Amino acid sequence: MAGHTNSEGEKQQVENETADGDVVTLAHGAGGEAMRTLVDDLVVPRFTDADRTAEADGAGVGLAALDDGAVHPIGDGSQAIVVTTDSHVVTPRFFPGGDIGRLAVAGTVNDLAVMGATEPLTLTCSFVLEEGTPIADVERVVESMRETAREAGAAISTGDTKVMGNGEVDGIVINTAGVAHVEADDAVTDAGLRPGDAVVVSGTMGDHGIALLAEREGFDFTGDLKSDVAPVNDLVRAAMDAGEVTAMKDPTRGGLANALNEMADKAGVGIDVVEGDIPVSGAIASAGEVLGIDPFAVANEGKVVFGVDPDDAEAVLEAIRDCPGGEEVTIVGHATEDHPGRVVVDTGFGRRYMSEPEGETLPRIC
Amino acid sequence: MAGHTNSEGEKQQVENETADGDVVTLAHGAGGEAMRTLVDDLVVPRFTDADRTAEADGAGVGLAALDDGAVHPIGDGSQAIVVTTDSHVVTPRFFPGGDIGRLAVAGTVNDLAVMGATEPLTLTCSFVLEEGTPIADVERVVESMRETAREAGAAISTGDTKVMGNGEVDGIVINTAGVAHVEADDAVTDAGLRPGDAVVVSGTMGDHGIALLAEREGFDFTGDLKSDVAPVNDLVRAAMDAGEVTAMKDPTRGGLANALNEMADKAGVGIDVVEGDIPVSGAIASAGEVLGIDPFAVANEGKVVFGVDPDDAEAVLEAIRDCPGGEEVTIVGHATEDHPGRVVVDTGFGRRYMSEPEGETLPRIC
Repeated sequence: MAGHTNSEGEKQQVENETADGDVVTLAHGAGGEAMRTLVDDLVVPRFTDADRTAEADGAGVGLAALDDGAVHPIGDGSQAIVVTTDSHVVTPRFFPGGDIGRLAVAGTVNDLAVMGATEPLTLTCSFVLEEGTPIADVERVVESMRETAREAGAAISTGDTKVMGNGEVDGIVINTAGVAHVEADDAVTDAGLRPGDAVVVSGTMGDHGIALLAEREGFDFTGDLKSDVAPVNDLVRAAMDAGEVTAMKDPTRGGLANALNEMADKAGVGIDVVEGDIPVSGAIASAGEVLGIDPFAVANEGKVVFGVDPDDAEAVLEAIRDCPGGEEVTIVGHATEDHPGRVVVDTGFGRRYMSEPEGETLPRIC
Repeated sequence: MAGHTNSEGEKQQVENETADGDVVTLAHGAGGEAMRTLVDDLVVPRFTDADRTAEADGAGVGLAALDDGAVHPIGDGSQAIVVTTDSHVVTPRFFPGGDIGRLAVAGTVNDLAVMGATEPLTLTCSFVLEEGTPIADVERVVESMRETAREAGAAISTGDTKVMGNGEVDGIVINTAGVAHVEADDAVTDAGLRPGDAVVVSGTMGDHGIALLAEREGFDFTGDLKSDVAPVNDLVRAAMDAGEVTAMKDPTRGGLANALNEMADKAGVGIDVVEGDIPVSGAIASAGEVLGIDPFAVANEGKVVFGVDPDDAEAVLEAIRDCPGGEEVTIVGHATEDHPGRVVVDTGFGRRYMSEPEGETLPRIC
């Protein structure tokens, strides 16, 4: 078929390029430094140029902020539209605790939520399917998306379906974009940390990433290893209603380490955390040791990192603790004027920088 | 690597399923009957269940409408948010007249435009890249997206980047979702045709599909074969300002034949068209004959099919003719009370039904 001929031609070109020029590597998709360089150097300068709407009146959040979503003021500026997007390529498509459909819906609901938009107006859903994928698998994924959307109180109102040939795409790729309509004052960014703010983590770290890797490796761990994938919009709403939330981020790709470093960097503050205070389940900690994976460096899919006004921290903790998935909420540290842009972790044996994960630790994890 | 082991396992499962159960085929992505069945049977009943927002007050357009986008009333219902999404898998990624980046931006701008939303609030952009893709190709695509967004007056304010392994995805997949904020009265659907309405086509048919297939086949046609991919939001705005537009659709996958059949079916009216009046360039007609492809059955990416109040048809035609890309705008027929749901074409030698394209005529065309 003509398409295949051409595809072969392109493959050839790629191989030549490997010798002559830069090519995309798995690290470019890992959520760390390589990806940020690609996005910063190549995408942001070009798209920001066209991104007049968000920046027009200084009140919006545009692409250059590289936050979990964008905020576009509408009308007189008292209201705003929050928009986010994620493509999901996770493998295997069904995993302990969830599947690619639940991940797609929860991921997008959560990106909206951490922008302060806890009531999605709607989600879009776009499938790219591999020829030969069992219809029963597609049905199971769609059913899971429905259930997760209902759980989050979200609609899915428009979509698209493309099919690629056998071998042209592996399995099922799902893009979900999310849209919410909020009071402009409600919008929260990942850049708002102030010195003194409590840094709060809504629950155990590392569950999604380590459960997924263990499943892929076929390891039979005792204990309950499963992904934490779930919508967190109700939990975020409870937190925002209970006190002043100054910054939020969902610690997905790159995990807690990435989220904290980004929050410190964007706010120009330091963050001090106490390693022993960061919640990690026993099973995840053990599996992480066996697999050689740091639970702080891998994706969570149902957790939130909050910056909270210190006077409100106890009230916010209490509100989160009452929410499903928030039972283990903990203050893990605080923001400081010291070491701006850096995260310092007290290990119990000393202090060290918590650095961002690098490279391709876990491809196709979300 | 664990991911590959698992991927092999899934492939095996797919092969077993081919014998035992239904699997996804290329026809499911072709925009015709097979795709509609998949979406109607499997997706719509589930997602519609969650799609409360759009349907809540009866004024919105939700998933069940299977229009080019969804319309969500906000506030007191006098305003609305229009949302759309498309994933783009076109191959080759660079083709005569455009590339996958221009296609992604124009496709989403156009889906908003034919819902009556001619001023995008923002677009999202999500890349799935194959490991090994030349960075220079990514850069060229991003640059093209920027240029097309500027042409359309659209911002791109949030995005995502995933990387799949070599062989796990072929090249570059781009999802763009689009969001617009409109006066609720401005929203137009593809279901509004009334008997007597003029059916207007904004320009020549078949350019994108046939140019792309000719390129893939490596045929050296004389004449100017190139894709028509372009944003049409200014042209749509001009048409809407000039007279009453009752229905709109962009004739992408499945081409004019698919668009007209959907418009007739949804409105419960018949459509009569005169084949000789439908604009087709000489080069496209010749190439279509050689390739055995009907220019009315393949995608256009810079054209619109309008239903127009007959009293306003001349004014609308004149307004469109003044827009770039609208020079060959033509009234190709009219809606009728006869043969509801069917499109009848007068070939000059007789009358026949214009049926919807079936099967996998052109995979990965958009």
